[in-house]
Amino acid sequence: MHTLYVELEERSYPIYIGRDLFAGSDLLSRHIHGRQVAIVSNETVAPLYVQRIRDALGEVDLVSEIVLPDGEQFKTMQTLQLLFDRLLQEGHNRGTTLVAAGGGVVGDIAGFAAASYQRGVNFVQVPTTLLAQVDSSVGGKTGVNHPLGKNMIGAFHQPRCVLIDTDTLHTLPGRELAAGLAEVIKYGLIGDEPFYRWLHEHMAKLLARDQAALAEAIERSCANKAAVVASDEREGGIRAILNLGHTFGHAIETAQGYGEWLHGEAVAAGMCLALRLSAERGWVPEVEVTALRQLLQSMALPTAPPPELAAGKFLELMARDKKVVDGQLRLVLLRGIGEAVIVSDVSSAELMQLLQN
Amino acid sequence: MHTLYVELEERSYPIYIGRDLFAGSDLLSRHIHGRQVAIVSNETVAPLYVQRIRDALGEVDLVSEIVLPDGEQFKTMQTLQLLFDRLLQEGHNRGTTLVAAGGGVVGDIAGFAAASYQRGVNFVQVPTTLLAQVDSSVGGKTGVNHPLGKNMIGAFHQPRCVLIDTDTLHTLPGRELAAGLAEVIKYGLIGDEPFYRWLHEHMAKLLARDQAALAEAIERSCANKAAVVASDEREGGIRAILNLGHTFGHAIETAQGYGEWLHGEAVAAGMCLALRLSAERGWVPEVEVTALRQLLQSMALPTAPPPELAAGKFLELMARDKKVVDGQLRLVLLRGIGEAVIVSDVSSAELMQLLQN
Repeated sequence: MHTLYVELEERSYPIYIGRDLFAGSDLLSRHIHGRQVAIVSNETVAPLYVQRIRDALGEVDLVSEIVLPDGEQFKTMQTLQLLFDRLLQEGHNRGTTLVAAGGGVVGDIAGFAAASYQRGVNFVQVPTTLLAQVDSSVGGKTGVNHPLGKNMIGAFHQPRCVLIDTDTLHTLPGRELAAGLAEVIKYGLIGDEPFYRWLHEHMAKLLARDQAALAEAIERSCANKAAVVASDEREGGIRAILNLGHTFGHAIETAQGYGEWLHGEAVAAGMCLALRLSAERGWVPEVEVTALRQLLQSMALPTAPPPELAAGKFLELMARDKKVVDGQLRLVLLRGIGEAVIVSDVSSAELMQLLQN
Repeated sequence: MHTLYVELEERSYPIYIGRDLFAGSDLLSRHIHGRQVAIVSNETVAPLYVQRIRDALGEVDLVSEIVLPDGEQFKTMQTLQLLFDRLLQEGHNRGTTLVAAGGGVVGDIAGFAAASYQRGVNFVQVPTTLLAQVDSSVGGKTGVNHPLGKNMIGAFHQPRCVLIDTDTLHTLPGRELAAGLAEVIKYGLIGDEPFYRWLHEHMAKLLARDQAALAEAIERSCANKAAVVASDEREGGIRAILNLGHTFGHAIETAQGYGEWLHGEAVAAGMCLALRLSAERGWVPEVEVTALRQLLQSMALPTAPPPELAAGKFLELMARDKKVVDGQLRLVLLRGIGEAVIVSDVSSAELMQLLQN
C-alpha cells in the first residue's frame, strides 16, 4: 500500500492506494470519529462493496446504507434532498460520518451533503472508478449539477481520507476505464511531461488492466493533483489548470444532457481542442496534436465534439462556465507538453474558427 | 455611526451600525469586489429598501433583484432552488456578490445560496429586522429548514460586511420588534449581567423605539455575539451558549409548523424553560424566573410553550436537535445571570417534569 498526503494544514488528509484495503484493517475506522455512519453508494456499487465497508467500520451505533440511482443525470438537487431526508429520518446527528463509495457522482453528491448536513459533518471517500480515484475524490470539490450548468451548486469540503482500492478496477466497464485514463493523461499534459511519455508507452498495459501499471498511474495522478490542490485549495489561481479541456468538455456534457457522454470522454475531446488552440499559437508542435489524437483513438475515446453540436451553441454554453469572470472566458492552454497556462485572450472569432474546422 | 469587528483572521469583517448608511456613502460599494450584484430581499422589504441599496452599489455591470416570498415557511430547499435558477438565468458568475436585504429568513437563504453558488461567492448582509440585526446576520450561520428540523441544511459562510441601518426599525411590526428583543435579552442572560439589568430598566424605551436605546441595545448585542463567534467560529464548543432557549424554541417552531410563532417568540418561551431548569438546580434564584417572565409579558411575548404541544412530542422533537450528539442532548443553562453553561446531564425524566408543569 502507498500513502500520499494532501497538505492543507488542519484539513490535511491521507490518500491510501493499494489492494484489499478493508479486511482486517483500521484504515477506515481510524477516520470515523463519531458513532454514526451513512454509507452512500449507487445501485451498481452497493452489492459489490458495501458489506466490505460495513465490516471495516469498527464500533458504531448506527449504520445507514443509502443507495442512489446510478448516473450523472441523478447528480441533482433532488437526489441531494433524498439524501437529507434519509439522514434525518434515521436520526443522524452532527457527529455522523458520510462514507461515499462509488464514482464521481456519488462522491460529489455525498460530499456536498456532508458539507451541508447540519452545516457540515465528516466525510470519507472510497472511489471505485478510475475517474474518481485520480480526480474527483481528491481535492474537496463537491456539488451537484443544475439544468443550466454542471457543478453549479456545491462546496469545498475536504474528506478525512481517501481510500483507493485498486481491485475495484477489475469490475469497471471498459468505457469507464478509458474515460478515467483521459483524466490521467491530463495530469501529464498540464504538469508532468515524463509521466505523459510514460503513458504513451504503457497505454496498452493500462487498458489491459495491468495492476502494477494502474497503481503507478493512479499514484502519479494523485500526487500531481495533491500538489496543485495544496497550493491553491479554493481555486483562486493555479488550481484552474486542472480544468484543461474541461470548459469545452462541460459545454459538451451540458449540450448532450448529463449522462450521454461520460465526463472523461467529454474531457478527451476538450483536451484535443485545447491542444489544437495551443498548436495554432505555435506553443506546441502540430505533431503533438496528432500524437494525442492517436493515443485517444487507441483508447476508443472521442477526439472532437459531437458533430450535431453547432459552434454557436457551443460558444453560448462555454460562456456560462464557472471559469468565466466578469465576461472574460478563461481557458487552460499549453505552452508546451507538461506546461499549462491560463489565458483570457481567446476571442470568440478564434473559438468559432476552431469549432467550425 | 459605530463600527464593530468580527475577528476571524482572513475572514474578519466589519459591522456598521447607524442611521441612513447608504446615501452618498461607500460603506456598501467598498465591499463589492466583482462587477455583478444580486440583491435578495422579500416582498415586504423590496419596495422599502432595494432602491437605496441599488443607488449605493457603485459601478457594476449587472444588478439582479430577487424577491422571495416573506416568511419562515419559505426558508426551504425549494426557495433556494429558485434563487439558483435566477442567478444562472441572469448570468451571475463566480465574481458576483449577493446582498441580503431583509430579516433572518432572507439572510439565511441568501447566505446559503452565496456559500453554495459556484462553490462560494461574496456576500453582504443588510438586516432589516431587529432579530436579524442582533443575531442571524452576524456569525456566518446560513441555511434552510427541512420538514424534519430547523436549519438542518446549511453552511458556515461569513459575510464581507454587515450594514445595520437602525432606521429600518421604524417600519418593523411591533410583534417582530418584541421578538427581536427576546434575542437581545438572551445576550444579557448568557454573558452580560449589567446589560441584562439595563434592559429591564430600558424596556419601555426600547418598545417605544427610542433610537438611542435601540442603537445601544443593537451594538451591545452584536459586540457580545462577535466575541463569542470570534472564539469559536464553527461551534465546536462555547458558541453553543448562543443557543440558550433555542433547543426548546426549535422544537416549538417545528411542532407549530414554521411561521406560526416567530423565532424570537419561541426562544422567549425556551429561555423561560431553561431558566426554570436552572432555578430547580439551585443555580439561579426563583425570583429571577419571575422577573424574566414579567419582562417578557410586558413585551407581549410567550413565557411557556403552546399548551397543545404534549410533553412527549416535545421531547421527541428536541431529540432531533443539531445539538444532540451521539444520543446525548446538550442544553444551555445558567449558573447565574450572565453565566451560561452547557450541560449534557439533563434526563428525560427531568424534562418531562418541567414540560408537564
